[in-house]
Amino acid sequence: MIDLYTWGTPNGQKIPIMLEECGLPYTVHPVDIGKGGQDTPAFRAINPNGKIPAIVDRLPDGDVTVFESGAILIYLAERSGKLMPGAPAQRMACLSWLFWQIGGLGPMIGQWGFFNRQKDAPNLPALQRYFDESLRLLGVLDAHLGTTPYLAGDYSIADIACYTWAKAGLRIIGQQHPQVRAQFANLNRWIAEIDARPAVQAGMKVPA
Amino acid sequence: MIDLYTWGTPNGQKIPIMLEECGLPYTVHPVDIGKGGQDTPAFRAINPNGKIPAIVDRLPDGDVTVFESGAILIYLAERSGKLMPGAPAQRMACLSWLFWQIGGLGPMIGQWGFFNRQKDAPNLPALQRYFDESLRLLGVLDAHLGTTPYLAGDYSIADIACYTWAKAGLRIIGQQHPQVRAQFANLNRWIAEIDARPAVQAGMKVPA
Repeated sequence: MIDLYTWGTPNGQKIPIMLEECGLPYTVHPVDIGKGGQDTPAFRAINPNGKIPAIVDRLPDGDVTVFESGAILIYLAERSGKLMPGAPAQRMACLSWLFWQIGGLGPMIGQWGFFNRQKDAPNLPALQRYFDESLRLLGVLDAHLGTTPYLAGDYSIADIACYTWAKAGLRIIGQQHPQVRAQFANLNRWIAEIDARPAVQAGMKVPA
Repeated sequence: MIDLYTWGTPNGQKIPIMLEECGLPYTVHPVDIGKGGQDTPAFRAINPNGKIPAIVDRLPDGDVTVFESGAILIYLAERSGKLMPGAPAQRMACLSWLFWQIGGLGPMIGQWGFFNRQKDAPNLPALQRYFDESLRLLGVLDAHLGTTPYLAGDYSIADIACYTWAKAGLRIIGQQHPQVRAQFANLNRWIAEIDARPAVQAGMKVPA
């Protein structure tokens, strides 16, 4: 059984989606980050960085603890034999786009969201910086999805990772700049396809 | 033969270090990011995101293209059988810390460095935000290195990834807050050990 520590954020949502896609049994431990749930000695023993998501896989040979959503996605893909291509070129395309999300799309949309929420004391230069970079990154994704159905050919962990962040980014853009959102035709097509997957719909509801 | 596209930045330095550690032959293609070297059609055909580092491994069965430093480190570890633990718990510790660098330490020190360079029009709230988060992350690394010689037990790709960014972060801190740098005793010990590795010294000089 896999213990899942998560919350309903773009990083937190990836893991229940993947667990549902793989059909691996898991127990959800909600970590309410609005109430400091990450900042406890028990949780820091699992992830010294004090961030969700994290998992502990209770294996017969001993526990395997994994933190950081990208590492967990790789672990679950290898554990289940699902959603990561086997051929070297496709496998590395999958890992390249996975790391691109972790190092770029996620942090930059995250910073944009942070400054976007500072309504009382807006920091306009910082807001502009992260809006511009988020838009650039979403444009890179959109252009790539004009050449391939999914990021590494078939649907994979790279799509799961990028999906939750692109969806969050497009939601903000849709509110503020609906005409910009409409221009991302490939991205909108790809999000609609992933939205329709039953495992994604189930995973997005965790924790209930 | 591996074609390496890189420049002397914390992300760019990781890959020649790893290639030197593994003893894999490679050809360096310097991409001068100060002169827009990343923004060419030829380079975007390798990495649609237009960022160094990237590699193309010219294999008999066909080229394997990899972008994003984290993905390249995993590829080279698997290609050479070096610097990634095999046992599941240690392997996942290695990947957890690798992703932690890619998603946290790198982007946050990167943003701190950006605002730190805006001397003419300093953005003090943003500067403070990224200074605080960089310091928190360096503290997480320091605390973990008080419990283990290297991030995942033995020296691995997780150490290479964190080393170039921690070194860059500590350099800025050393200039501005030398007493803070001195407090990171475990981090300073670990950096000195990695500094002493001949492959690291050779890799840090690429591109010459």
